This record gives sequence, structure tokens and C-alpha cells, in this order.
Amino acid sequence: MSKKIKLGILGGGGDSLIGILHRVASSMYDKYELVGGVFNPEKSESIKFAEKIGIGTDRIYKDLDELVSEENKLPETERIQVVSILTPNFLHFPMAKQLLENGFNVICEKPMTTTYKEARILEETQKQSGAIFAVTYTYTGYPMIRQMKEMIASGRIGKIQKIDVQYYQGWINPIIHDEEKRANTWRLDPEKSGISCCVGDIGTHAFDMIEYVSGLEVQKVLADLNYLYKDNKMDIDGTIMLRFSEYVKGIIRSSQIATGEENNFTVSIYGEKAGLKWEQENPNYLYLMEDGEPMKVLKPGHPYNSDLSLDGTKLPPGHPEGIFDSMGNIYKGVARAINKEDYHPGEFPTIKDGIRGMNFIEKAVESHNKGNVWVKIDE
Amino acid sequence: MSKKIKLGILGGGGDSLIGILHRVASSMYDKYELVGGVFNPEKSESIKFAEKIGIGTDRIYKDLDELVSEENKLPETERIQVVSILTPNFLHFPMAKQLLENGFNVICEKPMTTTYKEARILEETQKQSGAIFAVTYTYTGYPMIRQMKEMIASGRIGKIQKIDVQYYQGWINPIIHDEEKRANTWRLDPEKSGISCCVGDIGTHAFDMIEYVSGLEVQKVLADLNYLYKDNKMDIDGTIMLRFSEYVKGIIRSSQIATGEENNFTVSIYGEKAGLKWEQENPNYLYLMEDGEPMKVLKPGHPYNSDLSLDGTKLPPGHPEGIFDSMGNIYKGVARAINKEDYHPGEFPTIKDGIRGMNFIEKAVESHNKGNVWVKIDE
Amino acid sequence: MSKKIKLGILGGGGDSLIGILHRVASSMYDKYELVGGVFNPEKSESIKFAEKIGIGTDRIYKDLDELVSEENKLPETERIQVVSILTPNFLHFPMAKQLLENGFNVICEKPMTTTYKEARILEETQKQSGAIFAVTYTYTGYPMIRQMKEMIASGRIGKIQKIDVQYYQGWINPIIHDEEKRANTWRLDPEKSGISCCVGDIGTHAFDMIEYVSGLEVQKVLADLNYLYKDNKMDIDGTIMLRFSEYVKGIIRSSQIATGEENNFTVSIYGEKAGLKWEQENPNYLYLMEDGEPMKVLKPGHPYNSDLSLDGTKLPPGHPEGIFDSMGNIYKGVARAINKEDYHPGEFPTIKDGIRGMNFIEKAVESHNKGNVWVKIDE
Amino acid sequence: MSKKIKLGILGGGGDSLIGILHRVASSMYDKYELVGGVFNPEKSESIKFAEKIGIGTDRIYKDLDELVSEENKLPETERIQVVSILTPNFLHFPMAKQLLENGFNVICEKPMTTTYKEARILEETQKQSGAIFAVTYTYTGYPMIRQMKEMIASGRIGKIQKIDVQYYQGWINPIIHDEEKRANTWRLDPEKSGISCCVGDIGTHAFDMIEYVSGLEVQKVLADLNYLYKDNKMDIDGTIMLRFSEYVKGIIRSSQIATGEENNFTVSIYGEKAGLKWEQENPNYLYLMEDGEPMKVLKPGHPYNSDLSLDGTKLPPGHPEGIFDSMGNIYKGVARAINKEDYHPGEFPTIKDGIRGMNFIEKAVESHNKGNVWVKIDE
Repeated sequence: MSKKIKLGILGGGGDSLIGILHRVASSMYDKYELVGGVFNPEKSESIKFAEKIGIGTDRIYKDLDELVSEENKLPETERIQVVSILTPNFLHFPMAKQLLENGFNVICEKPMTTTYKEARILEETQKQSGAIFAVTYTYTGYPMIRQMKEMIASGRIGKIQKIDVQYYQGWINPIIHDEEKRANTWRLDPEKSGISCCVGDIGTHAFDMIEYVSGLEVQKVLADLNYLYKDNKMDIDGTIMLRFSEYVKGIIRSSQIATGEENNFTVSIYGEKAGLKWEQENPNYLYLMEDGEPMKVLKPGHPYNSDLSLDGTKLPPGHPEGIFDSMGNIYKGVARAINKEDYHPGEFPTIKDGIRGMNFIEKAVESHNKGNVWVKIDE
Repeated sequence: MSKKIKLGILGGGGDSLIGILHRVASSMYDKYELVGGVFNPEKSESIKFAEKIGIGTDRIYKDLDELVSEENKLPETERIQVVSILTPNFLHFPMAKQLLENGFNVICEKPMTTTYKEARILEETQKQSGAIFAVTYTYTGYPMIRQMKEMIASGRIGKIQKIDVQYYQGWINPIIHDEEKRANTWRLDPEKSGISCCVGDIGTHAFDMIEYVSGLEVQKVLADLNYLYKDNKMDIDGTIMLRFSEYVKGIIRSSQIATGEENNFTVSIYGEKAGLKWEQENPNYLYLMEDGEPMKVLKPGHPYNSDLSLDGTKLPPGHPEGIFDSMGNIYKGVARAINKEDYHPGEFPTIKDGIRGMNFIEKAVESHNKGNVWVKIDE
Repeated sequence: MSKKIKLGILGGGGDSLIGILHRVASSMYDKYELVGGVFNPEKSESIKFAEKIGIGTDRIYKDLDELVSEENKLPETERIQVVSILTPNFLHFPMAKQLLENGFNVICEKPMTTTYKEARILEETQKQSGAIFAVTYTYTGYPMIRQMKEMIASGRIGKIQKIDVQYYQGWINPIIHDEEKRANTWRLDPEKSGISCCVGDIGTHAFDMIEYVSGLEVQKVLADLNYLYKDNKMDIDGTIMLRFSEYVKGIIRSSQIATGEENNFTVSIYGEKAGLKWEQENPNYLYLMEDGEPMKVLKPGHPYNSDLSLDGTKLPPGHPEGIFDSMGNIYKGVARAINKEDYHPGEFPTIKDGIRGMNFIEKAVESHNKGNVWVKIDE
Repeated sequence: MSKKIKLGILGGGGDSLIGILHRVASSMYDKYELVGGVFNPEKSESIKFAEKIGIGTDRIYKDLDELVSEENKLPETERIQVVSILTPNFLHFPMAKQLLENGFNVICEKPMTTTYKEARILEETQKQSGAIFAVTYTYTGYPMIRQMKEMIASGRIGKIQKIDVQYYQGWINPIIHDEEKRANTWRLDPEKSGISCCVGDIGTHAFDMIEYVSGLEVQKVLADLNYLYKDNKMDIDGTIMLRFSEYVKGIIRSSQIATGEENNFTVSIYGEKAGLKWEQENPNYLYLMEDGEPMKVLKPGHPYNSDLSLDGTKLPPGHPEGIFDSMGNIYKGVARAINKEDYHPGEFPTIKDGIRGMNFIEKAVESHNKGNVWVKIDE
């Protein structure tokens, strides 16, 4: 009998792209078996989808309640061990909470919740459950990001003195400049999407990445958001100054109106001894710049990389891996945690990342609304 | 019951990287289920490996004979439908032949056989069987390669007038410059690896790629191979002039002694109206150069791409996909063929690619041995 | 007799790099003849330098007073027509003032003065003199910057909605982290260098470039500067939010502690229809990104460029020109103005650029000192 | 009185681009003074041109004979010391010969002559005259090419095992595909342009560069040229295999039908320990690839570069210099030679480069005409 971890999925049916990403990621290291879940609000659709993706339909449930109660009837060894939550954002919190309360491990898409308050509640629930909880800040799974983290931790660039992270996209242009469209898209409706569009969706990736690779914590933020039109209720561009300590500063630049940009997420960290740069669209290159030395271009799979980085590369140098592979690495880390194997804390983002991300979003909006003033991030 | 295609694998056990590549690729579009095979020469090892990758062990066989006879006892709907051959090169031919003779569809790693003669025999076998046969020239699955093929076919660059393909690696350096190592590696032993090392391993990728994207056929070759040392029996570098017709010429430059290169496979095709360039290590960029126009940089997932290209992209622009995704596209095409769905002939390389590749290798070596003279490729 | 414009230079002697830049630039279009000046504070040194660079010594003067009085004794047709000021910053203002008052045209290195007040005085002087006055914001002379300016002016990218300019260097690291060095370098001494180091030296380039290419004017700024050490009196890093109008925002990121960066000055302008990007270290590429179109890479010398851009390219496409050529273009524009030929207002930066630059520096420092608040730029 | 070297120029009048290049180059290091010459076949045009570029007209001559006889009447210290030959190719030889015979130093554009035989004669003349003779293979003046040469000479990449040089352009497309144009352009008329178009114009740059940077000499060549049309008399594409010794091989790929390419000249040299790559269109980057190390990107102006490289950089790192600066470096080297100062043999190409270049062209055409066979280069 298969010893793979039994995986359930909530959401991700139909033409969902996030569904494809998670299914492929789960299969990359032969560690998971997708056994069921709730792919669609309509059970009949869920069943059709199960058939389409070629899995059994006996563990397709009409909703999470049914999943929880039916799975819990099974002997522990046959039960779904971990559930991936890919539903619309506002469902992340109640679903994650219910799953944790019922002993399931959870892999949750970001944003983890819709408010910071929910995030804090979830933290309590998770502590009590002792279950594994991962938030899929996908980009942290890239081998060269892991290498960056380890080089910084080892002192390779010296004390950090400046951080600059950009996350630029241009996709919202056709919507934002059309009065009717901007009034009617759920993305720009605070009822449906929470208090922030740009900062909430991509600024938060930048924030998490900074804390992930640098090991530093942001202490306060000063944000200037842009809404472009008086009748638009959600930010679609946000520039956020960061303070790590009195003399260590940083900046997050996020935008959905950077026309022509696709998913241009770049991370630059400057230390007293060297700088490191990485670009998401060319993820297999890490640039090390040392005073007075030729720039070095590190690539995945070479023995000069750290164990954490090498663990995330499947093929030899020169065989490019991408975002599916990055998510696959996060799933691998979660599998190790579930299987109680040794793993590195950098293998997957945890509830702490989710909590800080939610806090960041709220503080950024607060800073903007107060007139671009400094606002503290909670400790 | 799952409607996935039942897949068997020969080879790919232990730490095999090619095994990982094929397993992940097969899972990318929810179309295959790996049900068994022969992963190792030792059945006990195969079983251990099956357990490790979390699949059932009841269809793990001691060898291909057993696989064929046991599977054929099963009702047709339960039988393994397609077998991927990932064993050492000299086994490709006999295994593929036996599988075809017994009605199995085949996915075969390259080189398809060890001689052109074998390739021709296999062609006959395949014709008689009517089975699907794919050779995994992996790089043809990249979305921007498919886009290149379609743009050329549609006349976008005009009549082709020049082709230049490079495949440079540097990995053999530590072996070739060590007298003992070069005498003892199986890679440089003609008994084990056929008549060519560099041309056979990577020159053949270049050759197949040229015919794939350009739609042209090479008519003759003039090769200059390099062995570097008198006692070395296999080429580790090969430059090959190509003639497509009297005035349409090309060049393949392949090397394993291009020190520092990883897997630098680049394709440049120049037509009367425009040129197209692509680099394997940055596979998500296709460069279109038209006389007097700014260079255009095409990327996957945009509506301006062809259907064949778009079919091979899973996420929106700016989310880099890599070589696993490329192989996944080939597996998807094979699945469509097996399921008798419509598919584009460019979705996977066929036995014809395998045959021409074998012929190319032999003709290149012949050209070199005769003193760098022109030698015709069979039609 | 030569009809070249007679050029004098103040400063730029010895090993001065800025001296080489101006001399070469002045010679690029056969329009200037360097006839004399004051290269060094010591006249004997000036004479030695004149001999070294192979010009006559009869018009080498002991100081500016002598230059002015002696040159004014010559018939107008023989007199020095334009003087380039390359002396230390605090001398720019008095020298420029004296030259203008005596009817000389002036080419002045940046910063034009050390205070905004001085800049305003100089403006008056220049108005009264009617002389040509250029400030050498060198980077505005690059052909692809000129092309960017013209494309924006022509509406190619639509209404501008976001501007992001970076100017990152890392050269100050060895000084700033050494207590003694940072206490003693003139660069970090407000007495010698004015009120700002980073913003004054490079932030101001970013500011001028933004107004040059976009045609917009910055209305207010919110700056966060960094001094890194309590005992350091001058900013060595500055992030400055910009407001062009209620909904058009921008950012300048300037740093001298971006370890490993050389002269990484990049300009990104996003409009409603397209974005444009340019990098100073690769100045012959201009990236045009339009929604849903492949990115286009424009290069100098092609007929698709504007007249202003083409005027600044001397050789056909593919022959890279650099910063000397950029400065040469500014000198060419000034020559046309002096010769009363037609010229485009984009050919050289004027006193207005100098004035706004000084105002920007003071307002940025004020914003920082007041606790990172918005401060208006004068109209 | 100016101690600059007195420079005369033959050709380069009117709108000549090569004229601009040489004039600017000569002025870059304050070492030359252009005093006269013969810019146009018509003396009145030459005088007009002299006025336009602002030099005296008293040393503008009607032809070379007059220049030689008049200049020789002047006292030696006032005489033109060096003459740059920028006339049509067929005039290079007779002009250079006459100048050398009359004691002038010569800077000659490439190709040095129209035949190898002429080149050999010129060699004799130069030997007898003892004058300085430089051939302007401009690209050898780039700082990173000089750095490449020095790194190879110092053993940094180990014994060279493979050389690959590309020189691709696409400019001839509009001519070659038009029957009338290709019949009537002087470029494709052997009477006017010698025996080769592509190899003669750009292949020869590749050949010279290889010998310049590698320190190796090509022993034999096997060329495959392309004429594209039966009625076309001159090659417009040439691929040339190179043999340096039994096991050291190389390739030159040159083309004028590589549609969309501008001036894509790239040099790749692979040694036993490392590889080096350089691209003319991005001349300020040199890529060092060592087995198992991150690629290093060297840039001009850093102390890690050799003296020869640093001598060719005028500004600090991050200030891009280009082709004018490259030619300026060659002029600087010639000035040192004329002034009998110490100089490095790598500072300018000599008559030997010119001779080997002419021999290469003839041997490449011979190889092609004989049916793509190996032909020896003279020693």
C-alpha cells in the first residue's frame, strides 16, 4: 500500500490555475497522493472535476463539514493528513480554523486570512492543535532565494544596511481605466477582497520575502498608496518605506499599474561587505556583488550552493526549473514536517509569516490613510 | 475508477534524474497514473523503489518479459497502456521493439537506438504495430520553441537562409584531461556508448531541433570532430556544417569541452524577412529581429502566441516554467495521441525524429573519418 | 582661420577625470577649440598642464579675474566664447556669476551652485546677460534618453501614471564604515560639500532626468535619508517619494551604500498605454513595454528613432557609444546655441534645470529633518 | 608651441563616418593635432571640409603627391608625422607605400591592401622605412578585449582547447534579394572590392581578434561561403573551420544575411581551466567561466584588471565607454610609439596583422572554391 501522504484539496476545480500549481507541486517528489476534497461549491461539479483529473470520487465531499466528519470516521492511517486551501480569500480563515480544530495539517494559500485579527485567532488555534501549518508564499521555494537566505545568515554580505524590493505588474490597466470595470470587479471591492488590492496581493509577497531572506524584522512602515481615480476604493499601487532599526532602512515598491510589467518581482539586499540581487522572472540567477570584485553569478545545482538550496534543485546546472518546482519545494518541506523527518525551518513559510503579512497590510493602509506617517508593525 | 492512462516505466530507479523528470512530467496534466514497471535490474531494488515513490508493488516486474506476459493477461482496460524507456542506451532498441511487438505504446528516451540500422528496424516494427511512439527530445516541448516553429511555418520570417545552432557544455573537462579517467568512463567507451559521445549526446538534440523548428531537412553534413587526445576514442567536440539546399546552409556547434558552459543550447534561424533566436537556459524568451524594426521579445502565455505554444503554458505571463514543464508538454501530447484526441503533430517527436537522429550521428562520424568531407543524409 | 568656437576651461587640470570628459566631449563634433583657461590654482601648474595637453600657453591665466580682463581686451572675434566650469562645487556660483556678468557663455558642471538662493541669483544674472548657460547633467545626452523624451512627448505611452528612478552606487562603503575616514573626507563635510551628499550628488541627477524625459514637474517630496552613523553629518542614502499631481506619483531611490553597485542609474516611466525603461550602464537599449505586446528593444541609429535621438548618434546601429558621446551631444547643442543655429530645447539642460535641482536638494533635506513629511517644490 | 603629434588624413571628408571616428579618436588623449591632408579627390571640396571641421586650410593638398612633396619641404619638427589612410580600399596599398617610402608613419584602415601580394610588398617597404605602421582593427582597443588577452597570456584559463568567434550582421538583405541592386552595388563587385565581401569585411576582424586575444596562430582553414544567388559574385556569408594544431580547433562564423543582427561580434575562448566570452555590442562586460565556480563578470576600470586594460579606460566603473574610446586607445598606443615612449605590443595592430588578414581572406576563398577543403595559412 502506498505510503504517500494523503492530500485533500479545497477549491482549485474548473479552470483554476492555482489548482494546477498545487497538484503538480504535490506530485514533484513522490510524496503526496491526492485522494479527495471539495473542488467546487457544487458537489456534482467536484465529482466531474475528480473524474477529469483522474482521481477516485468516493472522497469527494459536498463541503468541508462533510469532509471533516467523514474523514474522521476513517482509521487514522487512511485519513486525509493534510488539506490545501485554495478557495477565495475570505474562506481561508474559517476553513483553516475548522481543519486545525479537527486535527488536520493545513497548506493555505496567501493571504492567510482577510484581517490581522483573524490571523491572530488562527495562531491560537494552531498552537492548540499542534498541526503543521504552511502558507504558500510560493517564491520562497526557489533554490536561489534559499541560497540568498543562507548566504546572508552566514554573514557573507556582512551587516545588512539597505533593502530594496520591487513587485511590479501592469495587468490592472484595462480594468482601472474603465469606469464601469473598476466599479464592478471583485478585486477592487473591499467587501470581497479586504482592505487592500495591490499591497494585499503582491506587497505582502515582498514583505514576506524580505523577512525570509534577510532574517530581519520590519519595525515600522510609511506607505503612500495610489488609487488613480477618486471613485476607486482599493489601492492599485503602493510604495512603502521600511525601518528595520534606526539606521537600517528599506523600501517596498509594488504596483499593478506598471504598464507592461508581467510579474517583475526583484529582491536587492545590500550589506556592509556585499550585495545580493535576484529576479523572479529569471529565478535561476543570483547576483553577488562585492566591493572591488567582479560580480558573481550563482546558479542552482552547483556544489557551491548551500544544502537548503541544493535540496530544491532536481536536475544538474543548466536545466532551468521554474515556479512549479519552487512550489514543489515547499510541498516537500511540508511533507518532511508531516512525516516528522528533519527539515530546515526555511523549507516552508509558517503561520508566523501569515500573521506578519496581515499585520503589514493593515499597517500600510493605516499609514496611508493617516497621511503617510510612520506606523509600527506589531511584534 | 481513475481514467488516467496507465503508465509503466523501465529504468529510472535509484537516484536516477531522468526518472524524476519523467515521473513529474507524467503527472503535470493529470493524465497518467504510474502503475508499475521495472525500475532496476534487481527486482528487490525495484520493489524498494516503488515503495519509496509511494506506488503499489504488485505490478513491479523482474524484467520486461515478465511485464509483457503479466500485463497481457489483464483485461485490456486495466493493462499498462504506455511504457517509458529510461534504461541505458543499448537497451532502448530491444525493449522498444519488444514493447511494440506486444502492442504497447512507447515513450523512449534519446538516443532511440545505438545504430541507424536498429532505428530502421524499429520503424518497421512500429508501422506494423500501429502503436504510438515518442522520442523524448525534451527541448521541443518548450512553449517558445513551439512558437518559433509556428512562426516559421506561417512565413513570419520569410524563406530561411541561414541556421546556426549551438550546444555547448563543459562538464567533460575533469574526465578528458585525466588519462585514467578518460580510459575508464563508459561515456568514452564505444562498446558501451556507440560511435559518438558529443554528437551522439547533444549534437543530435541540435539536429532534431533544427528540423523541428525550421521544417527543413538536412541534406548533407561536413563534420570536424575533436578527440583532444590520441588515446581518446570518442569525440567530445563536434562542428558540423549543414547543407539544406544549394544556397541554404547551416551549422551545428556542439561541445563538451566548452569550459564553464552548463547546458548552453541556442537556436538561431535567419529568414529573408526576420531572424529568431532562443536560448535553452532562458527558455521563456523568444527574440524576433526584423530588418529596421526594434527587436521584439516574445514570452509565453500571451494571446499573441500560437495555440500550440499556448497549450504548453500553464500559468499567466511572468511565472517562469522550465524543463519539467517542457517534458510535461510532450507527455500531454502523447496522452492525447493515446486517447485518440486531436493533437498537433508538433506536440511530440516521433520515430522519424529518432531515425534521422541516428542517421545524422553516423554520417557526421563518417564525414570526419573521411577527412571532413560532405556526406549525404538518407532521405 | 579656424571658425571653431573658442573654449576656455576653469579647473580640470592634473589627473582630473571630469577634465578629460569635457575636453573629449568638446572635440567630438569639430565645433570647439580649447584655447586656454585656468586649469589649476597655481599658474605654473596650469601652464605645465597646457603643455601636457598640447595647447598654447599664452591664454593660460592665473585666475578668473585675469582671464576676464585679458580676454576682454581681445577683439570680439578672437575672444573666448564659452567657459566650462569644472572647479570644486563651491566655486561654481561665483565663477558662473562673474562670467555671465562679463558676457561669456557658460557650461557649468553640476551642482550648479551650493544653495538654492545662489541658483536664483544666478538666474537673474543670466537673464540680464542673455548668455547661453548649460548645466551638464551628462546623462540627458544619451540618444536613447532623448528618444524616451520624444516618445513620451508624442503620446506614445499615454498619460504618465507612475515614475520610478533608481541611482545606486556602493563606492562610499570603505569610507563610511571607517570612523576616521568618514570624519575627514570633504565629501561628508557640510562646510565643503553643501547640505547633502547622496541626494546632492546623484539624487539630483535622478530628479533632473525625471523632469527631462517626462515633461512633468515634481510638486512635492517626502524624503527619508540615511546617515548610517550618528557622527556622520551627510546623507549617503536617500529615498524620496514624489508627487506630480494627486494621482500621479513617483519615487527616487538614490544610494551610495548599495554595495557592489557601480553607477546603476535606471529610469522607468509607466503610462496608461505603455512603459519605458532605460539603464545607464547599458545606455544603448530602450525598452518599450506595451500591454499585450512583446517588449520592444529600441537601439540608437535606426530610422525609427526621433530626429533628436538620431542627431546624437555618430555611427550605424551596433557600434556602441558611451558617456563621452553623451557629453559630446550636450556640447554640440551648446555650440548650436552659441552659433545661433536652430536647436531642439532637449539638446542641453539649462539654468532652469540647475535651479530646480538645487531646490529639490534643499526640500528633500527639509522633508527628512521635519520627520519625513511632504514639502513643496517651488514653482 | 603645441607638442602634439601632427596628423594628416587621407579621405574621411564629406559625411564619412570613418572620418568622424578617426578624428574623435585622435583627440581623446590630447596627443594629436589634425593639421591637414587630402579629405576629398577635389581639392576645393577638401578645403570646404577643412573649414567645416575648423582646421586651417594651408596644409590641405590636392593629392598625396603634393602632400608628400610639400610636407617634406618643412623643417622636420613641423612636418606631418603620421598619416591616417581612410580612402577606398584599393588606394590603401599605393598610399601606404608612398607614405612609408617618404618617411611618414602610417595609420591604415582595414583591409590593409586588396591582395596578400601587396601586403607582402608593403611589409618590405615598412621594414626599410622603419616607420610606425598601424592597422585599425578597431575592436582590439576595447579594455575588456585587452583584459581577455592578458588573462589568457597569464595562463588564467589554461591551455586553449576551443575557439568560437561570431560576426553576424543582417544589413545586406535589402541588397542581396534585389536582382538589380546586387548586380550594381560596388560591395558585390570583385573589380572594386577584391575577392570577398563578407570574409573580407568582417571575417577578417574575427580572424585578427582570435590571434590577438589568444596569442595562437591559425594554421589552416576550411571555408564554406554562401553567395545565395547564382548571379552574385561575392560571398555574403562564410563559415570557416580553423585548425591551430592537431587538437586545438576553432570556428569563425561571419554573415551579412543574419537578418536583424546589427554588429553582433562575439568572442568565446575555452581553455582547460576556464572560458572567456565577450560581445562587441556590450563591450564593457567580460565573462569568466570556471569549472564549478559562479561565472564572474569583469568590467572596465577596476583594479583587478591588467595595466593594459586599465590604460584604456578613462572614467571609473559604471561609466560606459564605446567604440570611439576603443579607437582612441589605438591612437594613444600609436602616439606612444611615435613619441618613442614605452608601450605594450597589444596597444595597436601592426603590419603583421594586416598581412595575416589578407592571407586569411585569400585562403578562405581558395578553400571554398576547391570544394571546402583544408588550406594552409602562410607562416
